[in-house]
Amino acid sequence: MKFQITILGCSAAYPANGLLTTSQVLNINEKYYLIDCGEGTQAQLRKYRVKASKINHIFISHIHGDHILGLPGLIGSFGLLGRVAPLHIYCPEGVKEFVEAFLKYTKVRKLIYPLHFHVHQSTEPTLLLDNEDLTVTTIPMKHDAPTTGFLFQEKERPRNMRKEAIEKYDIPYQQMTAIKNGADFRTATGKVIPNKELTKAGKPSRSFAFCSDTAYTETILPQIKNVDLLYHEATFGDEKLEDIQERNIHSTARQAGQIACQANAKRLIIGHFSPRYKDLEVLLTQAREAFKNTDLAIDGRVFNVK
Amino acid sequence: MKFQITILGCSAAYPANGLLTTSQVLNINEKYYLIDCGEGTQAQLRKYRVKASKINHIFISHIHGDHILGLPGLIGSFGLLGRVAPLHIYCPEGVKEFVEAFLKYTKVRKLIYPLHFHVHQSTEPTLLLDNEDLTVTTIPMKHDAPTTGFLFQEKERPRNMRKEAIEKYDIPYQQMTAIKNGADFRTATGKVIPNKELTKAGKPSRSFAFCSDTAYTETILPQIKNVDLLYHEATFGDEKLEDIQERNIHSTARQAGQIACQANAKRLIIGHFSPRYKDLEVLLTQAREAFKNTDLAIDGRVFNVK
Repeated sequence: MKFQITILGCSAAYPANGLLTTSQVLNINEKYYLIDCGEGTQAQLRKYRVKASKINHIFISHIHGDHILGLPGLIGSFGLLGRVAPLHIYCPEGVKEFVEAFLKYTKVRKLIYPLHFHVHQSTEPTLLLDNEDLTVTTIPMKHDAPTTGFLFQEKERPRNMRKEAIEKYDIPYQQMTAIKNGADFRTATGKVIPNKELTKAGKPSRSFAFCSDTAYTETILPQIKNVDLLYHEATFGDEKLEDIQERNIHSTARQAGQIACQANAKRLIIGHFSPRYKDLEVLLTQAREAFKNTDLAIDGRVFNVK
Repeated sequence: MKFQITILGCSAAYPANGLLTTSQVLNINEKYYLIDCGEGTQAQLRKYRVKASKINHIFISHIHGDHILGLPGLIGSFGLLGRVAPLHIYCPEGVKEFVEAFLKYTKVRKLIYPLHFHVHQSTEPTLLLDNEDLTVTTIPMKHDAPTTGFLFQEKERPRNMRKEAIEKYDIPYQQMTAIKNGADFRTATGKVIPNKELTKAGKPSRSFAFCSDTAYTETILPQIKNVDLLYHEATFGDEKLEDIQERNIHSTARQAGQIACQANAKRLIIGHFSPRYKDLEVLLTQAREAFKNTDLAIDGRVFNVK
């Protein structure tokens, strides 16, 4: 079952050095969750062959243009392409109003698909979505606009049958799904066999945390503890540490590494690069000095969680 | 002196087949005039190395998303980059309101450069701009939203001095600019030499007409007569002729060629291609059957008027 992130944009503030602004898409089991939607997202989805029609949920971290400017185009194009499936947008205040201004002034033909906005606050972790595959919870960030990251936590996966138990108790095929999901088994003679004798633990559920935009903040650590894949913004390099500590709205690459290390994350990807960095290896090196298993979130790159 | 069009986007409705939506930029003498601003325009300007800071005038044909969705990002990024020069936007009703919604809801720091909106009507040809280099006049189009094309007409260029006259009358260097601009010359003895004896015609002034979106309409012919370079939309091919005659808002490639032919244009570029056409050569062939000197307006292509 897939658990895959595709990076669609990773530049901070405006497109630069051949990179577009923030957007990425999480594919869990061929359901797509879009995270932020910078200008050009709809074109990137096509470029990287992501099936946009399978996006039913969009998560917006904050209202800044480099995270939302692709929304009107994507929403309008869904309409042109005959979308009928509902689209859910989880966003801070203002996003709905901006999108509605687009629909109003450009006189887009009435969308025939339902468009639902779910406004989130950035003050405390909040469950946004809970379906058969995953939960999505906000992670309050430290930025100069109300901002949340998102924790995508896969649902616990079914337990696996023990082969020897199937043979020993002659378990019918029809009962296996229930047993994998934790049921006990009653034999023909009425004896109850407890589930733990019949099954072993399934593959561990996987998790992805998206943390952008944010200053360095340890308050997020409990939420992202042991996360499989962490995306953390890394707008600047070490030489800007003093500046950013003063403004307190962005992180350095090294700080992203420090957060990954303290969270005991398995893997880190850094992004949201200031246009000033034409050579991103500088940022990668600094992050890796704090957390070795780090990569750059360049447009088009795909990261799988096994 | 340059008179050069760079195509930034040419897809109709939404980005497709690797092409972005409508935008192009006219460079006259290193002053830049942006025409339409589809999503991704700011990234395209960087990609094709157009000096965006030299854009002081933006002409918007109509309110549809594929012609305006790049405006908020471009305007916001100018602000982030410290622009101070005024920016003039010539547009139909609704564009200002859409941009202002973006500025309001995303709480963009107050722009420090003046942003002037000039609302145009699409009912009759109207002079929008008249500066030392050119005039820009609207060309009413036939579309399902109020739409105007634009005629960019270079100012008459100065006459050239006749070398033999300079020697014969010993004309001082300081008087040459006035003479090139049409002044007569008074000799030391008080004799007046008429300008036509001193100069010959300068290079002819050049013109470019942007016509999109529009159904086939001959009412535009008087305005675009003898134009040096004509951009005309060519959304569909011959096989859709019946459909488009019914809807009456777009043209076929062949119709674009017919307009160029009747207008006695020197050269035609066609664009605004429906995403259904993966192979644009079909459209090019049909247009060329009506007007031979036709090319495709593909993103990144540059057209010079000599």
